[in-house]
Amino acid sequence: MKLLEDKILTCGTVLPGNILKVDSFLNHQLDVKFINELGKEIYNSFSSDDITKILTVEASGIALACAAAAYFDVPVVFAKKGHHSNVGSDVYSAEVFSYTKGKQYSVTVSKKFLSPDDNILIIDDFLATGEACFGLRKIVSDAGASLAGVAAAIEKKFQNGGNTLRADGIKVRSLAVIESMTDDSICFGDDGSKK
Amino acid sequence: MKLLEDKILTCGTVLPGNILKVDSFLNHQLDVKFINELGKEIYNSFSSDDITKILTVEASGIALACAAAAYFDVPVVFAKKGHHSNVGSDVYSAEVFSYTKGKQYSVTVSKKFLSPDDNILIIDDFLATGEACFGLRKIVSDAGASLAGVAAAIEKKFQNGGNTLRADGIKVRSLAVIESMTDDSICFGDDGSKK
Repeated sequence: MKLLEDKILTCGTVLPGNILKVDSFLNHQLDVKFINELGKEIYNSFSSDDITKILTVEASGIALACAAAAYFDVPVVFAKKGHHSNVGSDVYSAEVFSYTKGKQYSVTVSKKFLSPDDNILIIDDFLATGEACFGLRKIVSDAGASLAGVAAAIEKKFQNGGNTLRADGIKVRSLAVIESMTDDSICFGDDGSKK
Repeated sequence: MKLLEDKILTCGTVLPGNILKVDSFLNHQLDVKFINELGKEIYNSFSSDDITKILTVEASGIALACAAAAYFDVPVVFAKKGHHSNVGSDVYSAEVFSYTKGKQYSVTVSKKFLSPDDNILIIDDFLATGEACFGLRKIVSDAGASLAGVAAAIEKKFQNGGNTLRADGIKVRSLAVIESMTDDSICFGDDGSKK
């Protein structure tokens, strides 16, 4: 999606450790109008898939998930990170390792919000190693729900999470795909959705 | 706002410890269309206040903040909780005590996203003891920005956070105000904004 690639080139910064900082519009400060365009593009990619619910993980995925959900006209459920005393005990959970933070955390969803009738679209801001997504995928599976696909704003393809999902036959739509990046260049690829 | 009061009566649950669970539509599962109506109502209350930016705190405030921001056509900034290795060191921060979780945490905003030219509207899902809001207020003050007001979906008035803000002369708009609640009844009041 050229709109997003241009925004990354204009506003993004590459930091050591393969970190792409896009906090001026995507995950700290939020350019709501811009994120709405990303949500619309995700809708265009999954509009024929009978999505019943969007699943994301707090906090950076919420804005994009809500933008897309408005087009699908379905609810968003966001998985909570860590221990939450008022989530209750009747939950699905999964362990996720964060390479950015160098530690493991759990993600949790109340059982009442997922059912075997659901056809779930997972949305997140980034798809990198795929750890968060694999955790959400386990939760979808534990709930007996169907996984319609995974959508991300930015995929760091060289970190292989998206490749693993595709190899498993999962439909993946990444609005900007980064093949490689260095301090002064970002090389974009594609997510294969046009083939 | 009757729409929200009705939704609370239909879908909310009161738990021990003065917890009102509204996780089926506001802060775990998100009814995006409904939250959009709340955002519009917040816009109606602050449309003449020259808001330049909306400030909230992850994760539960993000959906409502984004819904309102679309009407104001301004960015959202969400404060991050705890230590974040990739927020950077050039930040405003404040300490917040969470009564729900029984512990203190820090909230952090990159300095580059707040300036003395900003006129900030703070938005959150709940206004109870006001701790989170006081933390955000300190950050706004540290940035030299103006605070236009505070908007919340649900105020638990008996926990006095809103009263403290009003006593300090801050404009507060709470879309549903709970004067008191027990296991089987919720008594609504008003936020004084119509007087």
